[in-house]
Amino acid sequence: MGKVLIIGAGGVGTVVAHKVAQNMDVFTEIMLASRTKSKCDAIAKAIGGNKIQTAQVDADNVEDLKRLFNSFNPELVINVALPYQDLTIMDACLACGVNYLDTANYEPKEEAKYEYSWQWAYRERFKEAGLTAILGCGFDPGVTSVFTAYAAKHHFDEIHYLDIVDCNAGDHGKAFATNFNPEINIREVTQKGKYWEDGKWVETEPHAIHKPLNYPNIGPKESYVIYHEELESLVNNFPTLKRARFWMTFGQEYLTHLRVIQNIGMARIDPIVYNGVEIVPIQFLKAVLPDPGELGENYTGETSIGCRIKGIKDGKERTYYVYNNCSHEAAYKETGAQGVSYTTGVPATIGAIMFMKGLWHKPGVYNVEEFNPDPFMEQLNKQGLPWHELFDVDLEM
Amino acid sequence: MGKVLIIGAGGVGTVVAHKVAQNMDVFTEIMLASRTKSKCDAIAKAIGGNKIQTAQVDADNVEDLKRLFNSFNPELVINVALPYQDLTIMDACLACGVNYLDTANYEPKEEAKYEYSWQWAYRERFKEAGLTAILGCGFDPGVTSVFTAYAAKHHFDEIHYLDIVDCNAGDHGKAFATNFNPEINIREVTQKGKYWEDGKWVETEPHAIHKPLNYPNIGPKESYVIYHEELESLVNNFPTLKRARFWMTFGQEYLTHLRVIQNIGMARIDPIVYNGVEIVPIQFLKAVLPDPGELGENYTGETSIGCRIKGIKDGKERTYYVYNNCSHEAAYKETGAQGVSYTTGVPATIGAIMFMKGLWHKPGVYNVEEFNPDPFMEQLNKQGLPWHELFDVDLEM
Repeated sequence: MGKVLIIGAGGVGTVVAHKVAQNMDVFTEIMLASRTKSKCDAIAKAIGGNKIQTAQVDADNVEDLKRLFNSFNPELVINVALPYQDLTIMDACLACGVNYLDTANYEPKEEAKYEYSWQWAYRERFKEAGLTAILGCGFDPGVTSVFTAYAAKHHFDEIHYLDIVDCNAGDHGKAFATNFNPEINIREVTQKGKYWEDGKWVETEPHAIHKPLNYPNIGPKESYVIYHEELESLVNNFPTLKRARFWMTFGQEYLTHLRVIQNIGMARIDPIVYNGVEIVPIQFLKAVLPDPGELGENYTGETSIGCRIKGIKDGKERTYYVYNNCSHEAAYKETGAQGVSYTTGVPATIGAIMFMKGLWHKPGVYNVEEFNPDPFMEQLNKQGLPWHELFDVDLEM
Repeated sequence: MGKVLIIGAGGVGTVVAHKVAQNMDVFTEIMLASRTKSKCDAIAKAIGGNKIQTAQVDADNVEDLKRLFNSFNPELVINVALPYQDLTIMDACLACGVNYLDTANYEPKEEAKYEYSWQWAYRERFKEAGLTAILGCGFDPGVTSVFTAYAAKHHFDEIHYLDIVDCNAGDHGKAFATNFNPEINIREVTQKGKYWEDGKWVETEPHAIHKPLNYPNIGPKESYVIYHEELESLVNNFPTLKRARFWMTFGQEYLTHLRVIQNIGMARIDPIVYNGVEIVPIQFLKAVLPDPGELGENYTGETSIGCRIKGIKDGKERTYYVYNNCSHEAAYKETGAQGVSYTTGVPATIGAIMFMKGLWHKPGVYNVEEFNPDPFMEQLNKQGLPWHELFDVDLEM
């Protein structure tokens, strides 16, 4: 039980603020901070009841973060700002004795590189400070990692094959829009494909491996192997894995738009000089594209994200599929944000509950599969992301 | 015979400078001016022989233009700058007693509107000043208008049906690039379709009318009815026309890129606020796309542009097809610019020759079909754009 500081007032921050405010038995005081205080004020007002304080902070600036941490004095910071800002926020946590939780690994701005090395390098410092840092506590990474840990704990002696499958079968009614920050989204999905097999990483051209996969309550959707950051920690933490892949659905139109955005140079992350000013094309594109936070209103359909696992239990091969389906409309009705923000923000809140209740309290820097999955799985059902499991079905592997 | 000032140092300016320098019997002194003097210097250096003087000028600024006109004192200005700058240059011409020639009608920056009204409004003032203004003297408008005038003069008593057909069967090897200024190109080809029929304009959705047309030495290419500015003056000057259309070929990939560019908001011509600065998305896109002036080196294939005309001669129906094919490689070899720049720059030079020789000398503001086509047609064969004619063939109308 303690004070929590949420940094970031986009779609995910909106959801976290709503869910944290629904759990005032756990969180004694709540502050929401971002670069633009007016966005925090609007969210606080929508939640009402004076539950949420707001503040302005520049998350790129350690000194500014320290100023805020020292004045509010939180137990835990939930970082749902930009991945570029993970390290400055972790630095401020160490300086001020604050515990840490995020939903996406640090990325250097000038290179679309997805790895935990930068954040894992903080392990000893957090340990020595007696502080807990919980990394990647959204849906994927986050719930998918907890799903895997839960499967390994309860249903397998050894897990051998893991396919994380992420389907968004929603329709936002726009010609093109991304479901979260376009800059982060486009960087991620235009990178090369990569998966783990037989003890090493296999790299492919972007979107080279694809096939239709069947999703519960949705049906078949063309799905593409892309690299996703939880694979790195999962293959470390579950060394029996012979293969681990991440699949995401993309519509043909979405891929066409991505291809053109790259062809015309608007996916570039290096600056060009325009009228004497350096501008990064993908950041300018972000300003022109629809704001993902505004997509909720007419968003129909649902997401389906889960883990398909094959392994050994009591000497016999078994398959297991654990998943959640989330309705965009229901998410919007509850929080004013669409399903992709909802499925990220709810698990971040649950991770914070785990920490506050002392269930995920372990000095150092950890990925979520390194904690006890059981109380987290219980909270998923209570906080709006109920899960389902299927045994011994065809996993289309 | 006299001094000529060329304004604009893009691909077309490059070609005009080369061709003017090949006709030093007609042009006694040549100056090339643009916003960026270094571009003029590079072109002058490539041509060599100290034939071309260079200068800096801001063509948006009448006073700056007047300063240059009064110091160089040209007989004629060839305006191959941006269409936005036609009126400032015409104003400076009137103020300084300089004759005028351009290749594209004035467009207001904030609206993609193609009409001659703004420039025709200068007619009386040019007439009173004893100055000639020759409008639209590129290929289309320009050669296509001269082709029409030539057909009407020599081969028809009445022309009834006109299809101007513009095919670029070249390959520049880039995923996406425009053949001239991307801002001007995208504004033009994303507008609604429009053609003249039975005494009125018929408007269509963009690219709604299309079919494959056969081009000489190229074969069938999918062609789309778009609005093109010469239609306005041609239906005025040839009132016997029952129908006048303009067809342009587009590849499927080009259209896909255009569609996406519009969907993502990068074709917008209204400014957005980015980091506190107003930026027009299409102008930013221009800075990111390949420079059309740099496309020449590996450009293969050819263009084919012509007029297909059906009408009456001596009481009988006849068809006539007059066209030029231009090789991108040959254009590049001669001038360092690709075929689309070449087919625009050569006719501008010929128009200037017509003026200097006193063959197209008529105080006022005129479109090219209002002058005698014969000496222009003769020069096309001499200056690198030979034309061919076919009688009584199937015009695919």
